[in-house]
Amino acid sequence: MHYHSTLDRTFFALSDPTRRGILERLAGGPATVGQLAEPFGLTLNGVKKHVGVLERADLVATEKVGRVRECRLGPASMAEATAWMESHRRVWESRLDRFERYVERSSD
Amino acid sequence: MHYHSTLDRTFFALSDPTRRGILERLAGGPATVGQLAEPFGLTLNGVKKHVGVLERADLVATEKVGRVRECRLGPASMAEATAWMESHRRVWESRLDRFERYVERSSD
Repeated sequence: MHYHSTLDRTFFALSDPTRRGILERLAGGPATVGQLAEPFGLTLNGVKKHVGVLERADLVATEKVGRVRECRLGPASMAEATAWMESHRRVWESRLDRFERYVERSSD
Repeated sequence: MHYHSTLDRTFFALSDPTRRGILERLAGGPATVGQLAEPFGLTLNGVKKHVGVLERADLVATEKVGRVRECRLGPASMAEATAWMESHRRVWESRLDRFERYVERSSD
C-alpha cells in the first residue's frame, strides 16, 4: 500500500494547474512563498496549501531562511509515476496496433 | 485553460489505486461493471463512480451491450501527461547534474 500511496500523492499533486505552475517556476530556481504568491495571484495561505500538497509528494522541499520560507524542487524524481504511465502506454499502444492490423486484414 | 483541464483530469484519475487497478485490468481486455466489482471488492455503484472519473479523462470508454455496461480502455493515450512529466524530469535531472558538478568542484 505504501507503493500505491506514493503514486497517489504524486498524481494528486500534479492534478492542479497551479501546483504544476509552481513546479515549473521552481525548476528555474528556489523561491520564497511570497515570490510564488504574486505571479499565481494567490494569497500566502493559498501558496502554503499548494506547497504543502507538493511537499507531501516530495516534489517540493521547503526551508526556513531567516524570516521567510524558501521553496525548491524536492527529492522526488517522478520516476515511479513516469514508469507507471509508460508501461500503461506501451500496453495501450500494442492493443491499438493489434486492432489496426485486425482492421487492415478485415478490409483485404 | 482547456489544455490544463485535460492534464488535471488525467492526473486526478490516476491518483487512486483502484482506478489504476481498473486500467490495468482493462489493459487485458474489456470487462463489465459487474466483472470489475468483484476483484476490487467494490459495489456496482463504487465501480460506476470510479469508471465515471476515468471516462471523463477519456482513459476508459463504456458501452451498453444488452443489459450490461461494458468498459474498455478509452481514446486517451496519456501522451500529453507523460510528455509533461518527462519534460519536468529532464529539467530536474539537469539541475541535479549541475549541483553534483558544483559539489565535485567544491571538494577539489
